[in-house]
Amino acid sequence: MSGLTARYQLYGRPGSFGKKAEGIALGLTVGSWTDLPQLEQEQLKQHKGTVESVTEFGDSPHPLKPELIRAEVEIRYPAANFSADLPAILTTVFGKLSLDGEVKLLDLIFDEELLARFPGPRFGIEGIREKLGVHDRPLVMSIFKGVIGRDLGYLADQLRQQALGGVDLVKDDEILFDNPQTPFEERIVRGKEVLEQVYKETGHRTLYAANLTGRTSGLRDKARKARELGADALLFNVHAYGLDVLQELAEDAEVGLPLMAHPAFSGAFTSSPFYGVATELALGKLTRIAGADFSLFPSPYGSVALEKNAALALGRELVSDSPLKRTFPVPSAGIHPGLVPLLFEDFGTDSIINAGGGVHGHPDGAAGGGRAFRQAVDAVLAGTSLEEAAASHDELKTALKLWG
Amino acid sequence: MSGLTARYQLYGRPGSFGKKAEGIALGLTVGSWTDLPQLEQEQLKQHKGTVESVTEFGDSPHPLKPELIRAEVEIRYPAANFSADLPAILTTVFGKLSLDGEVKLLDLIFDEELLARFPGPRFGIEGIREKLGVHDRPLVMSIFKGVIGRDLGYLADQLRQQALGGVDLVKDDEILFDNPQTPFEERIVRGKEVLEQVYKETGHRTLYAANLTGRTSGLRDKARKARELGADALLFNVHAYGLDVLQELAEDAEVGLPLMAHPAFSGAFTSSPFYGVATELALGKLTRIAGADFSLFPSPYGSVALEKNAALALGRELVSDSPLKRTFPVPSAGIHPGLVPLLFEDFGTDSIINAGGGVHGHPDGAAGGGRAFRQAVDAVLAGTSLEEAAASHDELKTALKLWG
Repeated sequence: MSGLTARYQLYGRPGSFGKKAEGIALGLTVGSWTDLPQLEQEQLKQHKGTVESVTEFGDSPHPLKPELIRAEVEIRYPAANFSADLPAILTTVFGKLSLDGEVKLLDLIFDEELLARFPGPRFGIEGIREKLGVHDRPLVMSIFKGVIGRDLGYLADQLRQQALGGVDLVKDDEILFDNPQTPFEERIVRGKEVLEQVYKETGHRTLYAANLTGRTSGLRDKARKARELGADALLFNVHAYGLDVLQELAEDAEVGLPLMAHPAFSGAFTSSPFYGVATELALGKLTRIAGADFSLFPSPYGSVALEKNAALALGRELVSDSPLKRTFPVPSAGIHPGLVPLLFEDFGTDSIINAGGGVHGHPDGAAGGGRAFRQAVDAVLAGTSLEEAAASHDELKTALKLWG
Repeated sequence: MSGLTARYQLYGRPGSFGKKAEGIALGLTVGSWTDLPQLEQEQLKQHKGTVESVTEFGDSPHPLKPELIRAEVEIRYPAANFSADLPAILTTVFGKLSLDGEVKLLDLIFDEELLARFPGPRFGIEGIREKLGVHDRPLVMSIFKGVIGRDLGYLADQLRQQALGGVDLVKDDEILFDNPQTPFEERIVRGKEVLEQVYKETGHRTLYAANLTGRTSGLRDKARKARELGADALLFNVHAYGLDVLQELAEDAEVGLPLMAHPAFSGAFTSSPFYGVATELALGKLTRIAGADFSLFPSPYGSVALEKNAALALGRELVSDSPLKRTFPVPSAGIHPGLVPLLFEDFGTDSIINAGGGVHGHPDGAAGGGRAFRQAVDAVLAGTSLEEAAASHDELKTALKLWG
């Protein structure tokens, strides 16, 4: 019988969790059980939630209420109870329960049959590499900076500078919405011209991810139009819209563009150690299931940082074995060229090195910043230390001097 | 210049908040300021975020880090920076910032000009009262119970029993999705028959809110079809979809049905005292702005309870003076007839008394439970104590005996 298993973190008194878990398993499915007549139990058996495991962590007391300890419980929900969409699944496993005190949703384990109802990434890591013709190294991405209130010429210049530095991808700022100065469609058209020109001059191909914004029901047509105009990829603030909206964009063959999920707003439900949804589930597994080709998340290195274990777990969710294609992990914020060896170590070759300040803040401008990153990547691939490589690469040398 | 002001709660060292607020105001708008040439400052002035207030609460230390105190800061964002939709607004004011440590979004104060871009409820409290012909008392609502895995006959019986008790509204269980045993359209058609029959027998009108579920892009057509089939109202798990999806349903004249916002999943981003979004903003102001005619939220009385001040603040947001119509507050969970005087006191006449167990758990069945609630409401309106009223009303007497 198909279904999915939810893993929760609870706090409570030692020995209290079995009963609590049983209450959840029934309350979120058939409602009651022991007082039902035998015949009704037979009929409802296939809809009943079941407790799969209860694990108490006696050495993990609640930081404010020392009489309580941490526990993890696993509850299985039959797929017969919900339609195969993420709003129904989230409502089932964490609808009312999200309001029921200190309970955090840690993981959702989908059966193969249920998972097959979800698209996953259309392109995935392989598909993106194919588009770029780059197969053997992490990709390098940079972000527009300070573009609110600026005109198209300003954006075009910035895009050109970034592309000249040899980055593989450039993404819009997530707070750049459709606006009279730099309308979505014109950004795409002008961006394409700029990047074609750079390609002619240098032979280097850079993809530009434009921010898909606006009212929900208009997104599909906007995305289709973007593709007609030759867009390379779309950035999407999925958590300000809903995971199902991302999934519908991913499933639409007429959209057919790589989708880059931005973590904007996700901190609202992932940051608390007691409430909400684990980061690796929200930005990892569910973002992949819903079809993102890239998932951005706070790197463990910057000032806006994710705890290291969570960041690594998130990265693993995006690339783990699965019938779904793999999603590019994009650890972001606080990235400079000196961190490239660490990024290799933590997130591997199949990841994206993404920088804003670390590109634009380079003394030689964004082009210099991009070059410094590419030089750092080449050094790691060649087994050379960054210091050694810096001896013969000026941009990298400058970057290491500035950021260490 | 139109815009909106966001109020945040931060924790930090005394005296540190002004700089932090300035960093947010710039970081979420123009990026940098003091190092910009005069001419660019002139051009970007209308896009720059500004700190409106910084209030430190020296007597509010962080519960785990006593060297930190609580503060509230207000930052104003020009409307020129975003499109007039909730995803853009949430991304601007709490996109990246939601990931930046212990910061909670407490309120959003919309300018009149910006607010005018949002529909608010189509019917509002007055419109719903009009439909029911009930103007002078709180409405009474009840919820289907234990309907997962049950067939249409079972639902119809339960609906009939609830309506016979004199409740004004009956809503689907939020975890009842479209399913082969009780498909959405058939629930509406059959529900209508049942309620028409009760109306013929008793002269009492009950409205039924069916749960609108499924893939996002299909919701509008499903809702329109529901209206064609004569649906009274729709329940909607807005926080599993996205506020903008609710807004599009509210704006659609061909849908044109009262919308009941369920708080499922909202606890993930409202429950933490340190992170996420204040409950009164998420389930109060924003739910009203997006067009819900009803907003359900945990009552302050039950086991799944909202802190009393938050629940009252939420209720106030739904009915406060505004160009928008008012949304019915529906405090839910843990409600039994004995609480009716308190509900009057806390949420006033323009609210909904909503019960599940308090209706179905009545020894005389759901019909008895509904009657007990109506009797309690009548008693309060007549200025009689419940004990007095119970002397001449059996169902109320039974209920008070059971629940106190």
